[in-house]
Amino acid sequence: MDKVQVAVFGAAGYGGVELLRLLRRHPYVEVVRLAGHTTAGERIDEVYPHLAGVDGRTITESNVEEACTEAEIIFAALPHGTSMEFVAAAVAAGRQILDFSADFRLRSRQAYEQYYGEHVAPELLSQAVYGLPELHRTEIVGAQLIAVPGCYPTGAILAMAPAVRAGLIEPDSIIIDSKSGVSGAGRSKLTLTTHFCEVDESVSAYNIATHRHTPEMEQELSLWGESVTVTFSPHLIPMSRGILTTAYGKLRSAVTAAEVHEIYAEAYGEEPFVHVLSPGKLPATKHVTGTNFCNIGLVVDERNQRLIVVSAIDNLGKGLSSAAVQCLNIARGWPETTALDDVAVWP
Amino acid sequence: MDKVQVAVFGAAGYGGVELLRLLRRHPYVEVVRLAGHTTAGERIDEVYPHLAGVDGRTITESNVEEACTEAEIIFAALPHGTSMEFVAAAVAAGRQILDFSADFRLRSRQAYEQYYGEHVAPELLSQAVYGLPELHRTEIVGAQLIAVPGCYPTGAILAMAPAVRAGLIEPDSIIIDSKSGVSGAGRSKLTLTTHFCEVDESVSAYNIATHRHTPEMEQELSLWGESVTVTFSPHLIPMSRGILTTAYGKLRSAVTAAEVHEIYAEAYGEEPFVHVLSPGKLPATKHVTGTNFCNIGLVVDERNQRLIVVSAIDNLGKGLSSAAVQCLNIARGWPETTALDDVAVWP
Amino acid sequence: MDKVQVAVFGAAGYGGVELLRLLRRHPYVEVVRLAGHTTAGERIDEVYPHLAGVDGRTITESNVEEACTEAEIIFAALPHGTSMEFVAAAVAAGRQILDFSADFRLRSRQAYEQYYGEHVAPELLSQAVYGLPELHRTEIVGAQLIAVPGCYPTGAILAMAPAVRAGLIEPDSIIIDSKSGVSGAGRSKLTLTTHFCEVDESVSAYNIATHRHTPEMEQELSLWGESVTVTFSPHLIPMSRGILTTAYGKLRSAVTAAEVHEIYAEAYGEEPFVHVLSPGKLPATKHVTGTNFCNIGLVVDERNQRLIVVSAIDNLGKGLSSAAVQCLNIARGWPETTALDDVAVWP
Amino acid sequence: MDKVQVAVFGAAGYGGVELLRLLRRHPYVEVVRLAGHTTAGERIDEVYPHLAGVDGRTITESNVEEACTEAEIIFAALPHGTSMEFVAAAVAAGRQILDFSADFRLRSRQAYEQYYGEHVAPELLSQAVYGLPELHRTEIVGAQLIAVPGCYPTGAILAMAPAVRAGLIEPDSIIIDSKSGVSGAGRSKLTLTTHFCEVDESVSAYNIATHRHTPEMEQELSLWGESVTVTFSPHLIPMSRGILTTAYGKLRSAVTAAEVHEIYAEAYGEEPFVHVLSPGKLPATKHVTGTNFCNIGLVVDERNQRLIVVSAIDNLGKGLSSAAVQCLNIARGWPETTALDDVAVWP
Repeated sequence: MDKVQVAVFGAAGYGGVELLRLLRRHPYVEVVRLAGHTTAGERIDEVYPHLAGVDGRTITESNVEEACTEAEIIFAALPHGTSMEFVAAAVAAGRQILDFSADFRLRSRQAYEQYYGEHVAPELLSQAVYGLPELHRTEIVGAQLIAVPGCYPTGAILAMAPAVRAGLIEPDSIIIDSKSGVSGAGRSKLTLTTHFCEVDESVSAYNIATHRHTPEMEQELSLWGESVTVTFSPHLIPMSRGILTTAYGKLRSAVTAAEVHEIYAEAYGEEPFVHVLSPGKLPATKHVTGTNFCNIGLVVDERNQRLIVVSAIDNLGKGLSSAAVQCLNIARGWPETTALDDVAVWP
Repeated sequence: MDKVQVAVFGAAGYGGVELLRLLRRHPYVEVVRLAGHTTAGERIDEVYPHLAGVDGRTITESNVEEACTEAEIIFAALPHGTSMEFVAAAVAAGRQILDFSADFRLRSRQAYEQYYGEHVAPELLSQAVYGLPELHRTEIVGAQLIAVPGCYPTGAILAMAPAVRAGLIEPDSIIIDSKSGVSGAGRSKLTLTTHFCEVDESVSAYNIATHRHTPEMEQELSLWGESVTVTFSPHLIPMSRGILTTAYGKLRSAVTAAEVHEIYAEAYGEEPFVHVLSPGKLPATKHVTGTNFCNIGLVVDERNQRLIVVSAIDNLGKGLSSAAVQCLNIARGWPETTALDDVAVWP
Repeated sequence: MDKVQVAVFGAAGYGGVELLRLLRRHPYVEVVRLAGHTTAGERIDEVYPHLAGVDGRTITESNVEEACTEAEIIFAALPHGTSMEFVAAAVAAGRQILDFSADFRLRSRQAYEQYYGEHVAPELLSQAVYGLPELHRTEIVGAQLIAVPGCYPTGAILAMAPAVRAGLIEPDSIIIDSKSGVSGAGRSKLTLTTHFCEVDESVSAYNIATHRHTPEMEQELSLWGESVTVTFSPHLIPMSRGILTTAYGKLRSAVTAAEVHEIYAEAYGEEPFVHVLSPGKLPATKHVTGTNFCNIGLVVDERNQRLIVVSAIDNLGKGLSSAAVQCLNIARGWPETTALDDVAVWP
Repeated sequence: MDKVQVAVFGAAGYGGVELLRLLRRHPYVEVVRLAGHTTAGERIDEVYPHLAGVDGRTITESNVEEACTEAEIIFAALPHGTSMEFVAAAVAAGRQILDFSADFRLRSRQAYEQYYGEHVAPELLSQAVYGLPELHRTEIVGAQLIAVPGCYPTGAILAMAPAVRAGLIEPDSIIIDSKSGVSGAGRSKLTLTTHFCEVDESVSAYNIATHRHTPEMEQELSLWGESVTVTFSPHLIPMSRGILTTAYGKLRSAVTAAEVHEIYAEAYGEEPFVHVLSPGKLPATKHVTGTNFCNIGLVVDERNQRLIVVSAIDNLGKGLSSAAVQCLNIARGWPETTALDDVAVWP
């Protein structure tokens, strides 16, 4: 089979370079263009010395026309706001796009504009598919524009979806308490928040109840008829990668741990990348670092009639780049685990 | 003023050695005995090389009679279960005790025995004072037996007490999501849970809804008439010290952020060690490392009518050893901040 | 091609589990047996939860007869002293062995016994091949018993070999200052040295001038006629994986940086896993984490007529498990990079 | 005794804020002015939230005239190049200055200009005292201008001075291999070098044989007649604070470990802040974090007739801010350990 040609925009960000790592071993695609903005003109192995001796290509300007000429598939690892114009042009050129930004994740233009600002291609919002295969696999097949979910929403939605769908949870009771590694802040904007000495040996909370990933969680957890609202609390952890999400919901009526386990086991039993842990086990982010896995642990607090679900993902894996590859595999009809079958490097 | 003589049991644990650091600069006490169990016969600076050239004393066996002969005040940094017999003997000998274990924190023998096992000195439970000055300062004055609060309960209770006392919160709605450094696991028992390579670059959950610190939180948050229950979720963070607690409660009725801030500012305005942060600010554990401070940030999620309070303490500071010194200062009528006026070493 | 059957002894150690990760993607081998000692009877995914849902096989006792019946190739990731008996039996049974221990690395029984203790199979010392392809590729082809080099020696020898071979260095002037992650201490023996709180935020030196890896370095750097001696200083770094080696040698006569670079470029130009960095660049361990790469940076200190070579490896990669796979590939005539073509997970 | 008034320039850097921590507990001084450049106009507790509730003063512009009017003593925690003009003005105004920059550390204008650039106040070079009490205590007494040594030189010089002074070492044989925490890079300039994700889990080398601290080491180690040259190799370690220096020197003639230990014990026996560890012990940086201590371990490599000395300091402690306080204490005739008697916060 001829390899399909792929362009990567935003190749010099953490999401881009993780994608390059994965695509190097993908048998059905060939990366023909690395594009960047501040890094245009530099070699990728100068930007990322761990690629020395492996990949010496030069990063080009983010020229959408050239990319659409060369490549059939475009990964757009660009910031929200920047991405939408670019994506619209690539859609118009008939290309298939995996968009890493938030620009096409929300169905509601109003919700987008409330949290992010003006949207310049709102007509594409209904066309875009939310790239979470566990909820939207059928729509992803053959999709042209796939909005890769946010890292926090991925962990939160996978944690709570089976319980909400099964009607176990009061729809206004959900709390998402997430703990993220620092790479979620990206590489290009250097701030005190990513300064080693300020982050190291510290855990902190930020943007509680105001974070922009909230509407994404609410949209997806409201798929089954009831309007779900979420209190979302992100925290910064002194580690590079990973998100642990502790999700809380009030149970509508008493349910046993075994019943909950069965609901989750059924929901995810066929999923290649979601592991429901044995009863009594709880996940750790390091178990999934560098992978596309989401590990899920379940607790029923009978004293308080509350369900607690803990999910672990790699924010740059199932939370971003490997999720995009999973979507591409599905969209193209390739085996879903292609290029995604590695386990974590341990320790 | 003559210095009061003090003995430290469990001197070779992390709580003990932190206490030694603080008492070195305490003008009113003199540590006359370091006792330990597995370390008896060793020099403290062999056990802790950072004390080389500073403190070369030998650790003795944990002999309560000898300690009571030598010292007026006894710090018992011993495991729960072990501590109670020892404390009972020291009480009988008329000594003043600061107990770091859980053995005298709960007023209810039944609650103790449900979570910890048999209690051999239940008659002292009503006599012991819960050493959280922000709630029990008056009782601490002159107290003979002070139960130093658990690290998690300290962060949780300080976060929620003003809101519960003011009647803002539904009493069955409280969730305590805590993130702790590894030193909470102690030094003496070496397990994979404290192995650098297993903890490093990972965040994990454990003992959700079953942790033994739960009844302590519920006891103290039920002081104002309503019976409060708590879902408690501890997490392990790749750092040595610190606990960040994110506490959630359903608001009984709408309240503004400004109103909540005023309630907290009033509750803690006179407290030397609790800082209510400016509106919009959230705490980080590193800000309080090595100190007796508790920093508190407040968020009202109006969309979900929920209060979120984030507290940061050092689990070995306000969560243990410096809290004990604060209690001693109060109990003895010394200035409350004696030996506790340092700020964090930054960064 | 039929897959060759492989047994892994010591599968539950860090070297073993890294090997399992690599062999999962090796097209020419199949792991048919995982053996362990303290973990026998447990499932590998209970010992290593990151394998949950991926590998649920049970670890067996380390029975050499059974292993030799089932498998053609045996990876022995066992401690020195333990390994030699086992290896001798497997050699007698005609199996091919990759030994991770120190037992067959030294040609001199006397050197072995001076540093490690009695050797029970000294007759195999001359038969074993030192598994550093950059120096011994020809001997590795078809070899039955391959002694995988120690992690520190790999970094040190690769750093200094080209300069010593070219006669640039005074043979008694070499200093090896190495900085290692904590995983080098293994997983099974829990000590304060691996306790998170003791290692975190600290760098320390240990075993300077007495470490057992010294004779291995001296043996290999003396391959070209002159007897080389080495002062070796290992250090412990608060990270899980990686060794950075800073190697110093007195130059016999003036040489330019360009000349040295050419010598190294020539020595390693054909090597698939050794990268000589551009002049002016120095390596970092994270660039090679999880890979079989060794990155090398060169400095000539003209003021002091000294050569400084800095090498970076992953102690569990090129320093152990992936090095073993590289040797196997060579020994069997498979493409040398089989299963070893990944780049580091970044960041 | 009236407190002496002190101004701190560069108060918002890591050196400045560490100094503020120490001076808060200094009984003989009062900080009357905090000055900064980019932070002027901000409150110090906004710049450093760990000071919330403790110090709410506003940072002023770095106005030397005003500072000299208000304060008798000026700590100048400014970058090299910037500092010298400022210092010259303060000297002219008759103030006592502790300069944290490199501007007055070198006796040789030529050496300064070779490594740093033009010097605008060379006439002060001979007047300035190098603030290492272990070598220059007498000169520090009453000194007006004290150049606080660089962090790397402090660790290197304290490691090697006794051996060089005793004539044990070949003067052209010294290698200084140093391992530093990230805070040495400062807080204000944000680069990839201090980005958490790039530093975390990695050790790297930089500026080998070219680092600007080299001439400082050579100047001080040449105090006893022989001209010493040094090869200096700095490394970056994933921790916030601390420098471990492994110093190597060729022994002129055979000497035993016991003899070396005696030479060091004699050299530092009266020093309040240098601990020569027991034979066989090697230091770790965490043992001295937040303190003014320098811990020293000694190894004689008899096989190679080489001395290895390992020193541990806190780069912001004995390597900068607490060293400045020690110098001030000596200069003013106050007890040398004033405000410096704490031990490390452990763990």
